[in-house]
Amino acid sequence: MMQVALVMGSISDWPQVQATANLLTDLHVSFDKHVISAHRMPKELQHFGETAKSEQYQVIIAAAGGAAHLPGMLAANTTLPVIGIPVQSKALNGMDSLLSIVQMPSGVPVATVAIGSAGAKNAALLAAEIIALHDSDVDHQLQSFRENQTKEAIKSNEQLQ
Amino acid sequence: MMQVALVMGSISDWPQVQATANLLTDLHVSFDKHVISAHRMPKELQHFGETAKSEQYQVIIAAAGGAAHLPGMLAANTTLPVIGIPVQSKALNGMDSLLSIVQMPSGVPVATVAIGSAGAKNAALLAAEIIALHDSDVDHQLQSFRENQTKEAIKSNEQLQ
Amino acid sequence: MMQVALVMGSISDWPQVQATANLLTDLHVSFDKHVISAHRMPKELQHFGETAKSEQYQVIIAAAGGAAHLPGMLAANTTLPVIGIPVQSKALNGMDSLLSIVQMPSGVPVATVAIGSAGAKNAALLAAEIIALHDSDVDHQLQSFRENQTKEAIKSNEQLQ
Amino acid sequence: MMQVALVMGSISDWPQVQATANLLTDLHVSFDKHVISAHRMPKELQHFGETAKSEQYQVIIAAAGGAAHLPGMLAANTTLPVIGIPVQSKALNGMDSLLSIVQMPSGVPVATVAIGSAGAKNAALLAAEIIALHDSDVDHQLQSFRENQTKEAIKSNEQLQ
Amino acid sequence: MMQVALVMGSISDWPQVQATANLLTDLHVSFDKHVISAHRMPKELQHFGETAKSEQYQVIIAAAGGAAHLPGMLAANTTLPVIGIPVQSKALNGMDSLLSIVQMPSGVPVATVAIGSAGAKNAALLAAEIIALHDSDVDHQLQSFRENQTKEAIKSNEQLQ
Amino acid sequence: MMQVALVMGSISDWPQVQATANLLTDLHVSFDKHVISAHRMPKELQHFGETAKSEQYQVIIAAAGGAAHLPGMLAANTTLPVIGIPVQSKALNGMDSLLSIVQMPSGVPVATVAIGSAGAKNAALLAAEIIALHDSDVDHQLQSFRENQTKEAIKSNEQLQ
Amino acid sequence: MMQVALVMGSISDWPQVQATANLLTDLHVSFDKHVISAHRMPKELQHFGETAKSEQYQVIIAAAGGAAHLPGMLAANTTLPVIGIPVQSKALNGMDSLLSIVQMPSGVPVATVAIGSAGAKNAALLAAEIIALHDSDVDHQLQSFRENQTKEAIKSNEQLQ
Amino acid sequence: MMQVALVMGSISDWPQVQATANLLTDLHVSFDKHVISAHRMPKELQHFGETAKSEQYQVIIAAAGGAAHLPGMLAANTTLPVIGIPVQSKALNGMDSLLSIVQMPSGVPVATVAIGSAGAKNAALLAAEIIALHDSDVDHQLQSFRENQTKEAIKSNEQLQ
Repeated sequence: MMQVALVMGSISDWPQVQATANLLTDLHVSFDKHVISAHRMPKELQHFGETAKSEQYQVIIAAAGGAAHLPGMLAANTTLPVIGIPVQSKALNGMDSLLSIVQMPSGVPVATVAIGSAGAKNAALLAAEIIALHDSDVDHQLQSFRENQTKEAIKSNEQLQ
Repeated sequence: MMQVALVMGSISDWPQVQATANLLTDLHVSFDKHVISAHRMPKELQHFGETAKSEQYQVIIAAAGGAAHLPGMLAANTTLPVIGIPVQSKALNGMDSLLSIVQMPSGVPVATVAIGSAGAKNAALLAAEIIALHDSDVDHQLQSFRENQTKEAIKSNEQLQ
Repeated sequence: MMQVALVMGSISDWPQVQATANLLTDLHVSFDKHVISAHRMPKELQHFGETAKSEQYQVIIAAAGGAAHLPGMLAANTTLPVIGIPVQSKALNGMDSLLSIVQMPSGVPVATVAIGSAGAKNAALLAAEIIALHDSDVDHQLQSFRENQTKEAIKSNEQLQ
Repeated sequence: MMQVALVMGSISDWPQVQATANLLTDLHVSFDKHVISAHRMPKELQHFGETAKSEQYQVIIAAAGGAAHLPGMLAANTTLPVIGIPVQSKALNGMDSLLSIVQMPSGVPVATVAIGSAGAKNAALLAAEIIALHDSDVDHQLQSFRENQTKEAIKSNEQLQ
Repeated sequence: MMQVALVMGSISDWPQVQATANLLTDLHVSFDKHVISAHRMPKELQHFGETAKSEQYQVIIAAAGGAAHLPGMLAANTTLPVIGIPVQSKALNGMDSLLSIVQMPSGVPVATVAIGSAGAKNAALLAAEIIALHDSDVDHQLQSFRENQTKEAIKSNEQLQ
Repeated sequence: MMQVALVMGSISDWPQVQATANLLTDLHVSFDKHVISAHRMPKELQHFGETAKSEQYQVIIAAAGGAAHLPGMLAANTTLPVIGIPVQSKALNGMDSLLSIVQMPSGVPVATVAIGSAGAKNAALLAAEIIALHDSDVDHQLQSFRENQTKEAIKSNEQLQ
Repeated sequence: MMQVALVMGSISDWPQVQATANLLTDLHVSFDKHVISAHRMPKELQHFGETAKSEQYQVIIAAAGGAAHLPGMLAANTTLPVIGIPVQSKALNGMDSLLSIVQMPSGVPVATVAIGSAGAKNAALLAAEIIALHDSDVDHQLQSFRENQTKEAIKSNEQLQ
Repeated sequence: MMQVALVMGSISDWPQVQATANLLTDLHVSFDKHVISAHRMPKELQHFGETAKSEQYQVIIAAAGGAAHLPGMLAANTTLPVIGIPVQSKALNGMDSLLSIVQMPSGVPVATVAIGSAGAKNAALLAAEIIALHDSDVDHQLQSFRENQTKEAIKSNEQLQ
């Protein structure tokens, strides 16, 4: 039983999503990873969404680009929180991905993070924040992570002087 | 057996989509109409897409707004041509609808028309163009429609003088 | 001890945020509500973020418009999940609000929902999804809500025929 | 007699349009290819549009960039279905191409696909979907193509594990 | 023999284009006016462009909205200077009209003015500036117009005090 | 006495503007060239605009990027036709240049061409079109240029076969 | 001798700029007001900029819309700090005004505030902040203003409870 | 006691901000520099803003990218003038940074300059303009700088001939 399902629309998204996986590991969040193309594997998407809750996932993270339907369609099939990462697309730099994910109509939410690599990392942090509400180990890791990045920022300030 | 399935994401889209229905009727294209919310009725969407070909539809027209997943997800489940109408949305005037429909990744196309009322009419004409390839009555209606609109434009020029 | 802190940047956002409050009530999620202007009340913002966890909130929902700094600055001061609602702004229709909320740099996430009224409702649903992971009553309400909206969509399809 | 006329606005579009040609070949769709610049060869464009139906084409695919007038002007001169590919332009990344093609006024539709290479492939698939309605060989190839890409997506998921 | 051909894509553009007509009259520029829909009257457009020079027009002004092909296609058929007015469109406020007119590829220029009513007036002034190079009456009117508007601006400053 | 004044806002614009100069030469249009920074040389700009007519220029071409004020401010100081070239800027790809040039308020027009290199060439053609109205040599060169580019486009079509 | 010159591009901007004037009065900042159209009154603009320093103004506030050249051209003629207010324009909602003002090339800055009414008020506050550095009365008023708006925000929070 | 506090949101912004530092030095404006991440160091930000006035800074310059909250939150905690530099971001080229900084709500202004390197230099010039109001050495340097850049522009014009 994994805490997070990390789903991407295409294997070509893996280089961006790897940052999510690495950070989940650092934060002691258990996860497995999946390629589920909304447009090439709609049945698998439907099945995955419908069974995600009984599989005891607590959060789904879904990354997709262009007319990005994966996060929203997973959300349509589950009441688990779904986090959407807009992959930076080629022509429109991810503005299409962002609007396709964030502008969900009333009734089915997707928790959207930033386009590209910043979003990939923040998706892991957001998942950890949700899980940390009832997992003291993850909560501890999250506090440490945040304290460390504050320390590093403060240190970079000192080095600038 | 209808030639066109006219699908909208929400009953609130009907006022815009009615123009499509009226024009299909004028062009002697048979159709039925459906509300299928991609996010509220994902199973029905999946089923509709999978069975559309055996139901002997020739074209699907799908209208949706915002993070508009309906046309793309229907296209993911059928090899029938799917025409997408980007409904004019409230905050972003349909730019979100347009990008969510037209920017489909390689492998599953949606034939996208203009945002809003111009697109609603053009979806009917595009469906008729496809059907007219093998339906001489529709072809005849289509020719008449186009000739008439040319005549009206010419007449408006004369009235301007 | 409330489950959700519902925060808005200005009392003028209340008409939009009221939909969030109503839906939280329907979903049996307890909450209190606050006006905290990031720019007029920065100390209160700082204090609120720092104490939110010890106040035993589980989720913060923050609505703001324009150069919307409230959700991100609350997130900077807590490890609780923060949901950001981009309020529809006057000149740029909420595109400024959206980018100011969603484009958070790596390290501090905000779970962003759609611009305006759709986002206001979805923020409540997203908060409920998080809380429902460990609150069976909210989970039950959430399931009912989703089933009901599916039924209503199906019914609207029947009425269209 | 070819099933598809593949038209581009400039020979410089050929590298992008080659993907369309290759996929049409794979799908057993017959086609010929043409450079017709809307702005440098307006008479040829006019003639091509007017005679396309009597030449027994079933679908026209037209690729153009910037203030892309080729697809719309071909559509103005025929009742055949016209598919428009917005070529990725230099300064505005194809947003100009997209809006110049998709925002056709009521009365003359263009079936628009995605900007750039995804659109180039999807134009071939959309043409094949239309032709497959009355060509069982193309239909068969199309089914195989779609099944294969689903299999490849599933395989990429297995390889990720 | 008129100095300017004032062309609009649709009779519905007349309310906006009337400002152009009025200002041409004030500036003593002779003109006639035409509805030529690029998409509904492509033959007429082609003919008009081809014969405009022999008709002894000196400038063509063309107003169109959405995927606005009229100015560019007229320019493709003549070497007369063509001025394009982007009509303010419904969904995208004329951004589509602007890009469809101004982003002409190398080889065929359109002299583009502002979206909507400011552009409608400036098209008349730009035409007058061209004609005034060899028409001293128009040049005189143009100087007067510009001096008057400067005087009015100065007067409005005085009234503000 | 030169027919065209070719003005750029910065010497760094010269690589883009050189295409304009070359094409003017090819079209037998006489011109001289100037760096006049609107923001660094406002007095020179003012003087240049005020004297351009008495210098017997017939057309001014002005290229500028970012908050591009050069074309509009030249136009404010003369009744000669001013053609504006939006230089492709670094961050916003010339969208800022385009809007700063084309969106002139009512009363002072700028004839705007496309962003970047296409616009640089089209500015020369547009200037030639204006001058050709009363210069048969330029008119002859312009006809030849247009015929040649049509021939080349036709030849590229033949080579594609 | 006034501390601030409040300049607008057109008398039609006065309704928006009046908020600036009122707030300057409240903050005890002395000012006079002017209509100077960059495009209709370029000589006056040039003169105003050149003499602003000897007139002993400390700050210039300039409001303009569309291709807004007024703030940048004033800044080109003075080394006084110039604050630019992007007026909300008709077609593009002030995005053109914003980019025309803020995207100044290196060498001549304009201190840009928000589009429309929020910017109109903030221009007054920014001017007061600059003047308050050496004017204790304005500094006192500014502190009071900021404290009062914080109190009002806190009070609105109490009323919400 | 320094005249300017030069603050950046991340040490990674230093390469862009170095141009600001160099120009401040050239203009004889004293400054110190700081990394203060709004999201990683919110307490330090709060403290810095609150004490900036008593530290006798006269101007704060703050550079940040993406959902850029640093300039606005500093401004929320001080009545010193705050200049915001929108750092050019990866996916959206700084449009997100620009809107997050410039679209401040009424009550707390940020003096925004251009995206990226032009803005970095102009921030230094704007700070110098403010300080020069009461510092004759800085005023002298500023006059020289502006005269020199005018001379260089004039020289580049001569070299072009």
